[in-house]
Amino acid sequence: MGTPIVTAVIMAGGRGERFWPKSRKKCPKQFLSLTNDGETMIQKTVNRISGLVKPEHVYIVTNDEYINLVEEQMPQIPKENLLREPAARNTAPCIAFAAAVISKRHGEDAVMLVLPADHLIRHEAICEDVLHRAANAAVETQSLITIGIAPTYPETGYGYIAFSRSEKAPEGFYRVSAFKEKPDYQTAHHYVESGHYLWNSGMFAWQAKTFLQAVQAHLPEAASIAQKLHDACDTDSFEEVLEQEFPKMPSISVDFGVLEHAEELYTISGSFGWDDVGSWPSLQRVARTDENGNYCDGDIMAIDTKECVISGGKKLIAAVGLEHIIVVDTEDALLVCDISDAQNIKKVTELLRAQGREEFL
Amino acid sequence: MGTPIVTAVIMAGGRGERFWPKSRKKCPKQFLSLTNDGETMIQKTVNRISGLVKPEHVYIVTNDEYINLVEEQMPQIPKENLLREPAARNTAPCIAFAAAVISKRHGEDAVMLVLPADHLIRHEAICEDVLHRAANAAVETQSLITIGIAPTYPETGYGYIAFSRSEKAPEGFYRVSAFKEKPDYQTAHHYVESGHYLWNSGMFAWQAKTFLQAVQAHLPEAASIAQKLHDACDTDSFEEVLEQEFPKMPSISVDFGVLEHAEELYTISGSFGWDDVGSWPSLQRVARTDENGNYCDGDIMAIDTKECVISGGKKLIAAVGLEHIIVVDTEDALLVCDISDAQNIKKVTELLRAQGREEFL
Repeated sequence: MGTPIVTAVIMAGGRGERFWPKSRKKCPKQFLSLTNDGETMIQKTVNRISGLVKPEHVYIVTNDEYINLVEEQMPQIPKENLLREPAARNTAPCIAFAAAVISKRHGEDAVMLVLPADHLIRHEAICEDVLHRAANAAVETQSLITIGIAPTYPETGYGYIAFSRSEKAPEGFYRVSAFKEKPDYQTAHHYVESGHYLWNSGMFAWQAKTFLQAVQAHLPEAASIAQKLHDACDTDSFEEVLEQEFPKMPSISVDFGVLEHAEELYTISGSFGWDDVGSWPSLQRVARTDENGNYCDGDIMAIDTKECVISGGKKLIAAVGLEHIIVVDTEDALLVCDISDAQNIKKVTELLRAQGREEFL
Repeated sequence: MGTPIVTAVIMAGGRGERFWPKSRKKCPKQFLSLTNDGETMIQKTVNRISGLVKPEHVYIVTNDEYINLVEEQMPQIPKENLLREPAARNTAPCIAFAAAVISKRHGEDAVMLVLPADHLIRHEAICEDVLHRAANAAVETQSLITIGIAPTYPETGYGYIAFSRSEKAPEGFYRVSAFKEKPDYQTAHHYVESGHYLWNSGMFAWQAKTFLQAVQAHLPEAASIAQKLHDACDTDSFEEVLEQEFPKMPSISVDFGVLEHAEELYTISGSFGWDDVGSWPSLQRVARTDENGNYCDGDIMAIDTKECVISGGKKLIAAVGLEHIIVVDTEDALLVCDISDAQNIKKVTELLRAQGREEFL
């Protein structure tokens, strides 16, 4: 057995609304540049792994609506590597689809680095190293590997992984003993203090066969559909099979549908300035801020203003005497929001939906 | 002697920047609609006196830059009643100019109701009644009359008038004993508590001759220029005399240049919801607000938001979790400002001027 090929599977079908009004149905977060450097989040994700994975081994799972954005933003990825989900079915079916195609094209030993398209990482080189070690560990242990992140504060917006030492684990890896859903603040505080928990980054490494075996064991229906996709892949009937079979997939996340039930599951404790950038306020943590802690993107004049998130375009934006305020200006919609109320931005999109103002969604 | 004609002199040359970014050099506050009803401030001013003064007796003092706006917004006013100041020289020369023209055309007995173009009045009928009484008192006493406003709170942004009872004053009028500049909060509080002070509204009533005599007594240079304007008025040489003589006027306010020195000066205590609308926050006092105290003009979605001032245009503006915030959106500039920092909006315009970004001023 030679060294298996390393592929990447980038999940880019999300429709997040937490970056409204910049993120819209037609252009969600992963296709936006949120870091004032011109690169979109998915472009950053693809560039991040360019030292580990050749462009022809990068797969992007998306859908009809975003296929043009993917092609525009990543012309270097072969078109046959853009996988279109005919229906949204959460992450387990998404990854099973990719595993079916990858095992057909690159063999069942091929390693898959599974990555969300819309996270930010401050220390790219360290991240690359961790992913490289995870890929090796996946082959060495023939197990599922999840990338954990050493938590730096009691974030309540992330899931956590409980880990323990194990003699079977490769050096630097730990056995996953439990997945924990988003905790309340006190629980998160306990997790961080205890030293036994990591953030669940949603990044994974495994061989295609390992994942497909786990799907067979825990989501047998999904496995039989994945087998059909595998068989049809690169034949004339593929599109038809995809359209017919994929929507029958159970809608379930890879964490709950597969990983929680796996017997052998390892994690590594990554520390590379990872952030899932789940909301406007998170830009203060991960993007460049001025000397007053303001994140500013656009033609911004900030006077007596601190710890604000201000994102515009060509228009002059003058901020005076503001503290902890989000200002996001677009062509047709403007958001001004107190940072502590950022979770209520969804009330705006809910109200717009209820009012039938789809043009703003 | 028949009943003198009542004229109005509306001062509309101001270049205020406190309503930036809506107010600009090219379109200052008096030409804006700030009350969500489509009427501009100067249109409201003209309409307010329509029961007292015929359109052909309404004079508007402005300058070359705004003459087109005046003509557009008030087509009912005869063009020869639009007086163009060749240079900005504060209110004493402005009113002397109008007095010269009015005394020439309508006789020196004509009454002048002098009104700023950019104030708001909630109870228009009561205001009309007060102006009517002031006009009568001006003729009866042959004195200068200033309209005082019974103060409702210790405003530090207004000048105050100290008044006392006088046997010579007509019924309901008082003798002005002193003008007080904008006080600090404690002084303002004392003024309001004492019951002996009124707000100085900047509205006046007098006969042309009374005013010109007072100018003769206290600003003789201005009086001689006014005499030249009077003589040239409605002759072929008028424009030339105006261009040559008006800029020689001393730049001084009517309060300091004339009224402070007058021996006989009466005031009436008006109570009609007057406000000089000196800044964005003042709209909360004088314009319609929603049940949470928000002033909203435009397509506004306010969620968990209170006591804000939000002024836009066609764009959707979503406000989430805001309190005491000003949001003003225009085509090319957006202002977001804490209400308690509204006085610092001028820092924006100062900085723009320093940066040579005249297009935003």
